[in-house]
Amino acid sequence: MTADLPIIRLRPKSKPQAIRHGFPWVYADEVVTDRRTRAIAPGAFAILEDAERRALGLVTVNPNSRIIARMMDPDPEAQIDGEWLRVRLRRALTMRERLYDAPFYRLIHAEADGLPGTIIDRFGDAAVIQPNAAWADRMIAELADALRAVTGVSTIVLNGQSRARGLEGLDERTEIMSGAIDGPIEVPMNGAIYLADLAHGQKTGLFYDQRPNHAFAQRLAKGARVLDVFSHVGGFGLAALAAGARRATCIDGSAAALALATGGAKAMGADDRLEVRQGDAFDQLEKLAAEGAEFDLVICDPPAFAPSKPALEAGLRAYERIARLAAPLVAPGGYLGLCSCSHAADLASFRNASARGIGRGGRRMQLLHSGQAGPDHPTLPQLAESGYLKALFFRLDG
Amino acid sequence: MTADLPIIRLRPKSKPQAIRHGFPWVYADEVVTDRRTRAIAPGAFAILEDAERRALGLVTVNPNSRIIARMMDPDPEAQIDGEWLRVRLRRALTMRERLYDAPFYRLIHAEADGLPGTIIDRFGDAAVIQPNAAWADRMIAELADALRAVTGVSTIVLNGQSRARGLEGLDERTEIMSGAIDGPIEVPMNGAIYLADLAHGQKTGLFYDQRPNHAFAQRLAKGARVLDVFSHVGGFGLAALAAGARRATCIDGSAAALALATGGAKAMGADDRLEVRQGDAFDQLEKLAAEGAEFDLVICDPPAFAPSKPALEAGLRAYERIARLAAPLVAPGGYLGLCSCSHAADLASFRNASARGIGRGGRRMQLLHSGQAGPDHPTLPQLAESGYLKALFFRLDG
Repeated sequence: MTADLPIIRLRPKSKPQAIRHGFPWVYADEVVTDRRTRAIAPGAFAILEDAERRALGLVTVNPNSRIIARMMDPDPEAQIDGEWLRVRLRRALTMRERLYDAPFYRLIHAEADGLPGTIIDRFGDAAVIQPNAAWADRMIAELADALRAVTGVSTIVLNGQSRARGLEGLDERTEIMSGAIDGPIEVPMNGAIYLADLAHGQKTGLFYDQRPNHAFAQRLAKGARVLDVFSHVGGFGLAALAAGARRATCIDGSAAALALATGGAKAMGADDRLEVRQGDAFDQLEKLAAEGAEFDLVICDPPAFAPSKPALEAGLRAYERIARLAAPLVAPGGYLGLCSCSHAADLASFRNASARGIGRGGRRMQLLHSGQAGPDHPTLPQLAESGYLKALFFRLDG
Repeated sequence: MTADLPIIRLRPKSKPQAIRHGFPWVYADEVVTDRRTRAIAPGAFAILEDAERRALGLVTVNPNSRIIARMMDPDPEAQIDGEWLRVRLRRALTMRERLYDAPFYRLIHAEADGLPGTIIDRFGDAAVIQPNAAWADRMIAELADALRAVTGVSTIVLNGQSRARGLEGLDERTEIMSGAIDGPIEVPMNGAIYLADLAHGQKTGLFYDQRPNHAFAQRLAKGARVLDVFSHVGGFGLAALAAGARRATCIDGSAAALALATGGAKAMGADDRLEVRQGDAFDQLEKLAAEGAEFDLVICDPPAFAPSKPALEAGLRAYERIARLAAPLVAPGGYLGLCSCSHAADLASFRNASARGIGRGGRRMQLLHSGQAGPDHPTLPQLAESGYLKALFFRLDG
């Protein structure tokens, strides 16, 4: 295979050490680009060499992306075929089967699971693939075959709606590759039941990354009045009900998401303890304050307010505003959970914005816990920035 | 009370905003010091004022400490007496009783629980107080009375051995204030049983802070061969045995700590699966490598290698060395947990040192989880540095 592959070479000033130590990306300005490099088809494979022409590994190339090459295998002789894909999938599956009792998890978390730019979420007998790098788009049939062979799933959905695809120059595309979707799938998690709409939902239909943070919220939820703001399909709200919350109020902008929350609560036999409110979260928070509402546990899990560096300042102001509006709704001695899935906002910035907002909401606080994505979302230590999810749990003064 | 209290005043250039927003400390160079300030007895109370003579709250003063004043209460009229102590203790107890099924936890974690410089760990019917600020040393009898009244504990140990006491100019002192200690106490945690020696142990006899990290290790431990390096009384090793580990090997320098580990395993009926090795951890790791030993899960929880800024560089080298020596002992596809309780080493520095060590140990890795101290160790968001405990869980290549 190697003999047929094009070569891309690091510039003399680019340091190959990071690559040798496991950093998986090469930026466009780090390589010598000539006519041959520019002619490489997006998603094709190549051999990456250092400036002294020593092979560093086999990469996938996308001349349309700022990340021009992603490491597939440090072995330049590797054959990226069905067996290679099955080995990576089996490795990922082994870890998930150790960590989880039931086959509901993120199976592949891109680079850290050895499949660059590729996300696979598993929902029992079904799976959703997000091919967010050109190689995965090109090899989607082989990937689906390997996925069926390793996990035995029968239904596979290709979800090509992510923002990441745009950065890679890939079109939007969504299709059911095999099997059939007959309505939402029931997903058991932390003792709750969620409904995931794999064909039409946000991202892959459910956010597995919040699982440990839902579990932490459950420790605070027994007998509590709970408010779940930006609830999506009821992530924190249904978890709280499963843990014995007295009642849960879910707020979301999407009527479809709230219908799924209600359906989940019904499946749990807990819909008599669930209230849903559709509308803008900021408006709803102000409305609840005007009503004099009080909750023992409030959780806000907004969409990424700071998805990129230029959006950071406005994003942090939005996080502060959420905290300021939510804090007065928390009963004396009650708890407030604030989440951010913004890559650009690091833990310290988000914590400061949250603490400022709580303070401006007139409350003093302790910080009990700083949560993150669960272990089915592994990272490469060399890509620390991939630790995007933050969930801060505060106790407010009595 | 206020009328009798001395006043300490911020210098005009010191910004009172941080104090108003909950930052609990005043450094010696931030206040106007005159003869009267210098005459304040260590541990006495005073009113803190800004440069415009507006009261910021009631503080405790220690002219012998770099932290000359610690906020006791933002209300300058507060009476720091038995009832005030009981209110703080009750508030802390309410949170722990929500979080934990059994009365074994850190009850008071200093500033974040409203009792500056004061640590109280609870072991069922017994408690250990570490008065690491002068006021707590001075009011130790009132504190013990309030603790008995609020929690009902009968045995109270004063443990005054900490490094923090030195920084406050306080002597070493340890005594049993009430009740009696008849040997080690059995402490249930994560399904394991630990023996805590409250009269002679390190710190308060047991490290509650690692509880969530022990629990994470348990998810990797079923059927596994486990190595617990710097095991103390068997923290990770006994947790792994409780979760069904095939066997656990505990390494520690202290024969007394290993005897407690063995005692805990006996109480669990698991001593046939426990092996202990006394000796220097670095030596033992090299010896195990020479023996060709292999483990499915290795955890290293060393003492603080970087307790202070000047020790940071040497500390990070020691963390790297631990990782380098431990990585080759991990079976293909196995797991490695690396902990740091160093204040001076932040998460990124520790993660980088660990990843470098693992790489130099010849392994590639995924980072599954970054753990921290449990929620019975709350922090003030304004004192981010108090997030001292870090536990990184890696999966190493197959």
